[in-house]
Amino acid sequence: MCRVHRYFRGLMEYIFFTDSSLIKGVNIPKSNVGFRKMCKICSAAETLFDKKGFYETSVADICGLAKTAVGTFYIYFKDKTAIYTYLVRNYYVVIKNYLNKYVVDCKSRYEMEREGLKAFIRFGHTYPQCYKIIWGCSYIDPALFEDYYIRFAKSYTDALKKYNEELVDVDYSTMAWVLMGVANFVGLKVLLKHKRLMEKELNSLVDDVMKLLSSGLFLNPPYPADKAAAGDGH
Amino acid sequence: MCRVHRYFRGLMEYIFFTDSSLIKGVNIPKSNVGFRKMCKICSAAETLFDKKGFYETSVADICGLAKTAVGTFYIYFKDKTAIYTYLVRNYYVVIKNYLNKYVVDCKSRYEMEREGLKAFIRFGHTYPQCYKIIWGCSYIDPALFEDYYIRFAKSYTDALKKYNEELVDVDYSTMAWVLMGVANFVGLKVLLKHKRLMEKELNSLVDDVMKLLSSGLFLNPPYPADKAAAGDGH
Repeated sequence: MCRVHRYFRGLMEYIFFTDSSLIKGVNIPKSNVGFRKMCKICSAAETLFDKKGFYETSVADICGLAKTAVGTFYIYFKDKTAIYTYLVRNYYVVIKNYLNKYVVDCKSRYEMEREGLKAFIRFGHTYPQCYKIIWGCSYIDPALFEDYYIRFAKSYTDALKKYNEELVDVDYSTMAWVLMGVANFVGLKVLLKHKRLMEKELNSLVDDVMKLLSSGLFLNPPYPADKAAAGDGH
Repeated sequence: MCRVHRYFRGLMEYIFFTDSSLIKGVNIPKSNVGFRKMCKICSAAETLFDKKGFYETSVADICGLAKTAVGTFYIYFKDKTAIYTYLVRNYYVVIKNYLNKYVVDCKSRYEMEREGLKAFIRFGHTYPQCYKIIWGCSYIDPALFEDYYIRFAKSYTDALKKYNEELVDVDYSTMAWVLMGVANFVGLKVLLKHKRLMEKELNSLVDDVMKLLSSGLFLNPPYPADKAAAGDGH
């Protein structure tokens, strides 16, 4: 059975599966002390990959910031690529968990998309390094990059299929990639402003995006297409 | 005055502005022979950055593939970062020119969005390295990455504003980022299939995307929202 260990370091969550075979080159510790050490190393690596880039960061740099011996690093990770792979895979789980938290109580797919989009933008704004680490992956490990997005799209498509009674009849895989693109780029728009994100501003942005999408996506959008088009609010 | 030199190398176009001050660390040659040499170097760099990554590629590797002396590289580029910057800036111009070619004769904004989306997907499929080079930029040169997307969004927003009579009344900057996200991620969906792209398949994909977007974007979409929603074609 695969047990899950979850640790928070600052604002960031690190999730470890006891089934270490999930990630090549990653060895999962047997004790809580080990998990806490591993978590410190991950947090340091993430900070340095963000600040200096993957290639300019050495294992010694990571251990220096994590205040652990270099030997400790190699107990848990085969090399720098293994920890990078772990971080990308961890984002996959952390982002999905973060979004789920916000959509779990939603009453309709419309509400789920709205709350999910809002949560995604907030996540990207809170952890701006995630764009760099995930998109930079297209360079550092193209297969990992592909796997990340193909898995995300597959899971999004499956989720949309369950709500087919609320959605228009198109290929749900296409719908999933459209929605992923919208969330990623609207999130990027917010991020590149380099400003604090106010709840009011976020709501108004998400309202605009939902106005653009709702009549094309949902069979019975909450705001009639003509009203949304006229921009007369709701 | 800024003169423009355009060269094709294989399928890829390289555009050089005689106003070399546009890109830091790039020196524009004075002769056609010089331009052709520079173009060979750019093409080799692009191939190697795609295959081996930016960090694993050396100036000597680039010159080896381009069959030029290492000294020649340094006549035109201060270092490896300068040629990378040039390539990203060149993509900006080449992608915009490529899209413009397909939308220039369009009669409506709807048609422009449809043909532009189709052209963007085709471009990404023909030059898959562009994703790696542009998104990898978020790591290699974050300021260049930001500049790339902020300029793209600004120019897209300005283009949308000119068609405000055909478009719904939302913030056009948000609309631009939404459309950029859709094009990038639907293009990625196509790319990650690693298959030949047939015209029929591309048309059907673009039809699906336009069905999802048209009623939310356009005041008078060509296909009524209810018909698109029922998926009964057109």
